[in-house]
Amino acid sequence: MLNLDERINFQNNKSNDLLAIGEILIDLISTEYGEDATSNTYQRYFGGSPSNIAMNAKKLGIRSVVASAIGDDGLGDFLMKKLQSAGMNTDCIQTVHKATSMVLLTKSQSTPIPIFYRGADYQLIYTPKLEQYLKDSKLLHFSCWPLSRYPSRQTIERAIEMAKANNVLICFDPNYHEMLWENGEDGVSYVKSIIAKSDILKPSEDDAERLFGSDIPERYIEKFLELGAKLVILTMGKKGAIVSNGSSVEEFPSLATEVIDTTGAGDAFWSGFYSGIIKGYTIRESLRMGFATSAYKLQFTGAVIDLPKLEVISSLYQI
Amino acid sequence: MLNLDERINFQNNKSNDLLAIGEILIDLISTEYGEDATSNTYQRYFGGSPSNIAMNAKKLGIRSVVASAIGDDGLGDFLMKKLQSAGMNTDCIQTVHKATSMVLLTKSQSTPIPIFYRGADYQLIYTPKLEQYLKDSKLLHFSCWPLSRYPSRQTIERAIEMAKANNVLICFDPNYHEMLWENGEDGVSYVKSIIAKSDILKPSEDDAERLFGSDIPERYIEKFLELGAKLVILTMGKKGAIVSNGSSVEEFPSLATEVIDTTGAGDAFWSGFYSGIIKGYTIRESLRMGFATSAYKLQFTGAVIDLPKLEVISSLYQI
Repeated sequence: MLNLDERINFQNNKSNDLLAIGEILIDLISTEYGEDATSNTYQRYFGGSPSNIAMNAKKLGIRSVVASAIGDDGLGDFLMKKLQSAGMNTDCIQTVHKATSMVLLTKSQSTPIPIFYRGADYQLIYTPKLEQYLKDSKLLHFSCWPLSRYPSRQTIERAIEMAKANNVLICFDPNYHEMLWENGEDGVSYVKSIIAKSDILKPSEDDAERLFGSDIPERYIEKFLELGAKLVILTMGKKGAIVSNGSSVEEFPSLATEVIDTTGAGDAFWSGFYSGIIKGYTIRESLRMGFATSAYKLQFTGAVIDLPKLEVISSLYQI
Repeated sequence: MLNLDERINFQNNKSNDLLAIGEILIDLISTEYGEDATSNTYQRYFGGSPSNIAMNAKKLGIRSVVASAIGDDGLGDFLMKKLQSAGMNTDCIQTVHKATSMVLLTKSQSTPIPIFYRGADYQLIYTPKLEQYLKDSKLLHFSCWPLSRYPSRQTIERAIEMAKANNVLICFDPNYHEMLWENGEDGVSYVKSIIAKSDILKPSEDDAERLFGSDIPERYIEKFLELGAKLVILTMGKKGAIVSNGSSVEEFPSLATEVIDTTGAGDAFWSGFYSGIIKGYTIRESLRMGFATSAYKLQFTGAVIDLPKLEVISSLYQI
């Protein structure tokens, strides 16, 4: 069991902290506010939750590597250059003969429907190099994107097995979205089978509803735990989060005071939490580090902002 | 044989002139000039050659219908509204549960590589309604896009059979591009098999090189004719075109005097040519109408411009 008042003991001989496997993509965001794709002009941004988390984590002060596939095109070059200029290790970036994946988004006060254009991202294959980085890492992070299609699904399945065999903590963002799956496939059942193999989950209320139907937060938590997860962090926006390790259920408040842009707030949480547990804080402290990093990020526009070291955030939010 | 000095006799009891089957899509064009996707900002436009040809043809004064598939998303709505506001018949527009297809293009003086994002376009299926419009048309037009993937490939194959059985002239733009095909599939051989079933072809020199390797224009023409085409219009940009019906080979000069934007010049040719043969001009006159329409379009920016009636163009260019 993961006791909230204890630290997680990682093997000290690992040469890397976090390996994030999954999508790296172009976020194409409308320049004007509107509803579903009513805008005529779009701006491109570096995107993809695992790559954002890995970049954040590096800024906060832990070692991180991202494994993703980009296309052999101008947009892939753009993403690669962004990683390089952020000083990221790009050993696990695979370049494939497919269009760089893209998500078209409309800036909106409501929740407009994203349009997914998937090409390169799910072509990520399991390689000896990826395996080496995985064995050398303390944490494995992934989301639903690579699980939704082959061959990246196989890559994650093999990574999970290898992580279990090498004392790598398995952290899964069950951000299920029906549009990522091929028409007709039962993505919900499959995602549940992966939840069963994961140690730490951070679903949002929306994710939980898409997986289990409408229910109250406490029941969502139970359902995730019943499937086999060891620690469930159910995030509820400004209402904070409910966390359970199967023995106790605790509420954590949001630490946000000013909300300028919610983009990337979840990724900021993950990176703050990971940095906390890696730096030897207890799980409870690390959770608060996650909420503090998220609160810090909410004050600025953009998915990846210029985060300070974790120690600065921890002192700002008095953790 | 198609004699250049004769008119093409169409059945008079048809209720439509041109049925264009194929892609309708979003052209996402960079706002700045640059090389492959170096721009950060992109503007969306109505795109897709068959839809452009059908809209042009309507403006020139013949009856036209376009058959395409759009996604059930904001971009699909945008395309549908554009068709409606141009007064087009949308009976053969199919809405499917896939992202509306998109091509990302960089404005450039050279020839930057487009990035293709295909979703809805190749989901076009053969329906009783499509068949009815096909039987009721004089001309069937299509390009390589629907041929490159299933199920739209089957739709074109069935349309070709039905066209042959119903005296519909089969016109094919063999705009072969390797990136449209699935990795590993021999698109060249397949496109050649469709050329063999077509009446009229309008390849560009680039198309011919991609299909046959580097050669001289006269040999390209021979190769298309050997495959079985009845009339080959090999376009060569400002050098004009070489046309052959298998018995004679003739050069046609470009009629362009001012070149502001080459986008859509080929589509303008097709629509002028189609309007000519439908309105009862000889093939030679209709070819000149095609070049005149193309020359007219070259003076303006954009793929689909506000074309006048064919008679205005024919008098402007003294045909």
